[in-house]
Amino acid sequence: MSGVWGKNIKLSIFGESHGKAIGITIDGLVPGIKLDIDYIKGEMERRMPGKNKLSTARKETDQFEILSGYFNDRTTGTPLCATIRNSDQHSKDYSKLKNLMRPGHADYTGNIRYRGFNDYRGGGHFSGRITAPLVFAGAVAKQVLAEKGIVIGSHIKSISDVEDNSFDKVNVEESLLKSLLKEEFPTINKEKGIEMRKLIIDAKGELDSVGGIVETAILNLPVGIGSPFFYSVESHLSHMIFSIPAVKGIEFGEGFDISKLRGSKANDEYYMENDNVKTNTNNNGGILGGITNGMPLIFRTAFKPTASIARLQHTIDIERHENAELEITGRHDPCIVQRAVPVVEAAAAISILDLMYDIK
Amino acid sequence: MSGVWGKNIKLSIFGESHGKAIGITIDGLVPGIKLDIDYIKGEMERRMPGKNKLSTARKETDQFEILSGYFNDRTTGTPLCATIRNSDQHSKDYSKLKNLMRPGHADYTGNIRYRGFNDYRGGGHFSGRITAPLVFAGAVAKQVLAEKGIVIGSHIKSISDVEDNSFDKVNVEESLLKSLLKEEFPTINKEKGIEMRKLIIDAKGELDSVGGIVETAILNLPVGIGSPFFYSVESHLSHMIFSIPAVKGIEFGEGFDISKLRGSKANDEYYMENDNVKTNTNNNGGILGGITNGMPLIFRTAFKPTASIARLQHTIDIERHENAELEITGRHDPCIVQRAVPVVEAAAAISILDLMYDIK
Amino acid sequence: MSGVWGKNIKLSIFGESHGKAIGITIDGLVPGIKLDIDYIKGEMERRMPGKNKLSTARKETDQFEILSGYFNDRTTGTPLCATIRNSDQHSKDYSKLKNLMRPGHADYTGNIRYRGFNDYRGGGHFSGRITAPLVFAGAVAKQVLAEKGIVIGSHIKSISDVEDNSFDKVNVEESLLKSLLKEEFPTINKEKGIEMRKLIIDAKGELDSVGGIVETAILNLPVGIGSPFFYSVESHLSHMIFSIPAVKGIEFGEGFDISKLRGSKANDEYYMENDNVKTNTNNNGGILGGITNGMPLIFRTAFKPTASIARLQHTIDIERHENAELEITGRHDPCIVQRAVPVVEAAAAISILDLMYDIK
Amino acid sequence: MSGVWGKNIKLSIFGESHGKAIGITIDGLVPGIKLDIDYIKGEMERRMPGKNKLSTARKETDQFEILSGYFNDRTTGTPLCATIRNSDQHSKDYSKLKNLMRPGHADYTGNIRYRGFNDYRGGGHFSGRITAPLVFAGAVAKQVLAEKGIVIGSHIKSISDVEDNSFDKVNVEESLLKSLLKEEFPTINKEKGIEMRKLIIDAKGELDSVGGIVETAILNLPVGIGSPFFYSVESHLSHMIFSIPAVKGIEFGEGFDISKLRGSKANDEYYMENDNVKTNTNNNGGILGGITNGMPLIFRTAFKPTASIARLQHTIDIERHENAELEITGRHDPCIVQRAVPVVEAAAAISILDLMYDIK
Repeated sequence: MSGVWGKNIKLSIFGESHGKAIGITIDGLVPGIKLDIDYIKGEMERRMPGKNKLSTARKETDQFEILSGYFNDRTTGTPLCATIRNSDQHSKDYSKLKNLMRPGHADYTGNIRYRGFNDYRGGGHFSGRITAPLVFAGAVAKQVLAEKGIVIGSHIKSISDVEDNSFDKVNVEESLLKSLLKEEFPTINKEKGIEMRKLIIDAKGELDSVGGIVETAILNLPVGIGSPFFYSVESHLSHMIFSIPAVKGIEFGEGFDISKLRGSKANDEYYMENDNVKTNTNNNGGILGGITNGMPLIFRTAFKPTASIARLQHTIDIERHENAELEITGRHDPCIVQRAVPVVEAAAAISILDLMYDIK
Repeated sequence: MSGVWGKNIKLSIFGESHGKAIGITIDGLVPGIKLDIDYIKGEMERRMPGKNKLSTARKETDQFEILSGYFNDRTTGTPLCATIRNSDQHSKDYSKLKNLMRPGHADYTGNIRYRGFNDYRGGGHFSGRITAPLVFAGAVAKQVLAEKGIVIGSHIKSISDVEDNSFDKVNVEESLLKSLLKEEFPTINKEKGIEMRKLIIDAKGELDSVGGIVETAILNLPVGIGSPFFYSVESHLSHMIFSIPAVKGIEFGEGFDISKLRGSKANDEYYMENDNVKTNTNNNGGILGGITNGMPLIFRTAFKPTASIARLQHTIDIERHENAELEITGRHDPCIVQRAVPVVEAAAAISILDLMYDIK
Repeated sequence: MSGVWGKNIKLSIFGESHGKAIGITIDGLVPGIKLDIDYIKGEMERRMPGKNKLSTARKETDQFEILSGYFNDRTTGTPLCATIRNSDQHSKDYSKLKNLMRPGHADYTGNIRYRGFNDYRGGGHFSGRITAPLVFAGAVAKQVLAEKGIVIGSHIKSISDVEDNSFDKVNVEESLLKSLLKEEFPTINKEKGIEMRKLIIDAKGELDSVGGIVETAILNLPVGIGSPFFYSVESHLSHMIFSIPAVKGIEFGEGFDISKLRGSKANDEYYMENDNVKTNTNNNGGILGGITNGMPLIFRTAFKPTASIARLQHTIDIERHENAELEITGRHDPCIVQRAVPVVEAAAAISILDLMYDIK
Repeated sequence: MSGVWGKNIKLSIFGESHGKAIGITIDGLVPGIKLDIDYIKGEMERRMPGKNKLSTARKETDQFEILSGYFNDRTTGTPLCATIRNSDQHSKDYSKLKNLMRPGHADYTGNIRYRGFNDYRGGGHFSGRITAPLVFAGAVAKQVLAEKGIVIGSHIKSISDVEDNSFDKVNVEESLLKSLLKEEFPTINKEKGIEMRKLIIDAKGELDSVGGIVETAILNLPVGIGSPFFYSVESHLSHMIFSIPAVKGIEFGEGFDISKLRGSKANDEYYMENDNVKTNTNNNGGILGGITNGMPLIFRTAFKPTASIARLQHTIDIERHENAELEITGRHDPCIVQRAVPVVEAAAAISILDLMYDIK
């Protein structure tokens, strides 16, 4: 259980943090998509750890190998499977923790769900590492969308209580998105970015971790993507986004704050501009009735602080059924938000592409 | 498109606001579930409009008829279809609005998505009325869950900027939930409830509308429901919740605010209590790695203010491709939050039951 | 369980023979399909019993009502639900048979599968009557296909051991198919048809029943419909065809007999004809690698003799767990093959349309 | 497209004959299944070519590697992915055939379906080689079934017009099935087996190929597996069986011949035997209303002769759009029926297990 998502595109994800390999099968891509492998590598690198002191010192090369569905530099239309071999693992680190359920992790719930048979090493199938194949799939989807002029970009809206500026929901600049895509730690307000980074380093120094919020924008979407009810853009996208470990909330447009507006403000009034339908405001984040309206699609994703911290924590021993203490000694990210940015974008890209394939 | 949701339970929803009937087919219920029809009627009534001046004066009797899958007072195990005939409609009200795209509604996006062929009257398939069949399905699911001791309840966390107390996430009282279920306008703090109601009446008086947030708790869930990735509780539940018209955000546990905590605070530490595993805090809202941990499942759903307001609004005429003005004269809810409460609970009940059926 | 089929079109079927209504929800139809209601009625009539002495005297008017997804004579693109009210039932006929498992029927298997909670009257959800909604859906699909020039037709290939001529697999005449569609008892060789009918009447006289084979052809299919493996035309179509009660076999092209040919004969050699690719023979029945090749799609469906016969039969009493005797007194078809013809065609039409929607 | 099958178990198949690897992801297996790797290897070997002169001289070692979902010799409950690297390929053999559409193969239909982008080498994703991952999955499923006492076995019912004895449908001996499983060329009547083999060698000598029929029995199934309509055992199993390249027909129990029986004969009358419900005959092949009745499940699968033959054949050049001639020079099986036996059994095992998981 866990492995298949999508309506027209079917994603099958597999792998454990310390198993032989992780990977994904993408079924339903149209034939003939030319893939820019370097671009995919670049996306993978955006997620990769070990790049700077904001993230774990673990080196995961995340080198993918396409096993099928790809021929003469193009998709064949048959299932595309890509795998990433696991290497730099310290499996012995985990054996002694086997029975100590790490707080904030899925150790306990996974143990019960899988009756003790799950691979507990490094979080096993629950590991954030399993998002690497999602980034691969997203990098494919982003290329298809880019061909249609659709651009996805994100910034770190907040780390802990330090907040970046928000996107101008009506007029997100394409150039802004593109420049954010190039940054290791993308913020609109550079000084806020420096503050955030300092906050992360501080937390690390105190053997602690911090969380944050990612804000994402999708530009140039055609009108009419999505469906009411079970294939609303919000339904489909949130389904995928909540598959990303550590996500605890998602909101579209004004999101939770729209509940504080009056209808006369919240309704985005229409007007014509050169034969295009536009809205004056974009409180609905580009989606009405579950369907895109042509305005920028805007959403925010909340990440909790990294569950792995080096401090002593109280927990239980699942074998002995008694209270215990725990010190996690591995190498961990004091914050995963900056690494989560490409994962969120990947999730969005795949979701949108899947819904676009639904238009007949 | 729009109509099928679920893994073990398959829901097919259908109907338009001013069509002949709306309804739902529930496939995958186990045989032999004794249904309390009066209970279902009660749930339907909780959603029904026209009960007080907080909601539209429209009378929808929402009388359902079970067409199949039900025999000798029990489910048969074959697909259960229930329909609700439409009546008290003023279809002519809408004809003149046909080309005027109501702001905040799906008129425009639906028109493009369905190439002008959708039933535009009263929002058609996009109407909030289509949630009545969901409440029916939820009332069935709630009965199955109740048999297992699982209780779902909600309160109105906020209307506009008036906030109710929050659930005590670690110790939600079952008795509190049960008393909330009996209220027309459920709040924990009664005075805040009065304030909220006043706010709704005020908005109505000003030909405007307000939104709000619903907080929901699910008690006594077994540990181990849900799966990592594509069948995480959050994924499955949010998929369904965002199918409800007017929802713009969802968060679990501390939700967006968990991003402001440090890991040492956000991690819910475990301890043993009489051979039961508990956590001291419940920032993760009863879910870790997409799987229930036995603590109360807590989530909040943000609703935007009702899109239908009686004020003059600016919009476009889709036929003439030009700017236009619009006055909506029908009978509308100044706030749909209180009517949305049973819909949210229904969505949660079905999602949880579907995931419980997944445990083999 | 039982109710959802399809990839792009999702069918949810529901109902029991003696319940309130039977019906179907069709999700995924494109918007704007103009429906010829009289044509649909005509298709329903082809399946209806009581037309002549070859079939049961039961009168089922099979009057359908479209509840949703249909507006101004066209599909809206939202789920289309149609129901058929049950009437002329003799429910009391069945109560005394409740514990006597009718041989050849699903009484016993259904009783175990649904733990005794299924509606046993008239076969309940297992009744052949539940194919009426399939014919409705097929009549919609056939109209969409007809717009593209695709024609589906069938003849009764055999009743018991009386065989009709076979289709000329390479050159099925469109005019032949169209004339077969108009016949109550379609055969290519009229004399064989008369013989078959006599055989049915004879069986009826002897309180017995007969089975037969339906041969179906689909003309003017585009090349490239279907996919290897799990969405091969054969997989998708056979999945649906075996949903029809009483079907025990299906074969494509030469079918079982192709196993007797040598490769040099079985391979359908290609040639160009006016820039069209053709094959000299059509042993593969228009499908290679699960995908249409532009030649007529040909398949045969085997139906067992009607399980309901008036003769005394040996069986068991499920309540008493002992041997018993049984005499079925209701009104039954001595042969269902002629009534199954439109059901097979409907199944084929929906399957093909679903796969056509898959081409992006 | 092509890659996902199943309701509770989700299979994602991928790979091309001459790509890097082929494989399968199995989602939905319960945790804790102890896998006998040697048994799986044995099943893979049953399908492997190059064992004798009845099959191609190609050596495919079919060595699989389990990448995920397997830990400490048991399934973890998370997706299990296994891959098989491709090796001994003569890719250049195929380049010159690129534009010559091999009769009986999917070259032409695949070319159109995938707009010329599919990997044409060795049939690409259409290759019979892609059934190796199915055999892997089947070997897992068979072990789970074996734990429950369920046994699957097959014999070659016919090669060309040489017929083996049939199974005694009422009393298939478990010992017979087990001895058939050990044979390279399983027949009940050994002399017929010798005759069949001679026939294959003869065809090979004449640069031709032959087809045949496989008869399969499944013993000790519980009563109540399967569902009416879209999850009938016949629907689910035939869907999977027709995914196997070269299959052109399937029938259950008496199959096509049941259409020649009268109802009084075709109905399998019930009787009690030591508190077990049995039938005197088994014309329905152990399935009634799509659900198992506890009698042996019997079905037959028809395979066409191998499409690859060394003789000169007429065809077209897809690039030049003109008639052409073709000589296939590779190494090919003069008959694939004996190698298909474990594939059919695998397909059956997975289908049955998937339906068993449906019982709640």
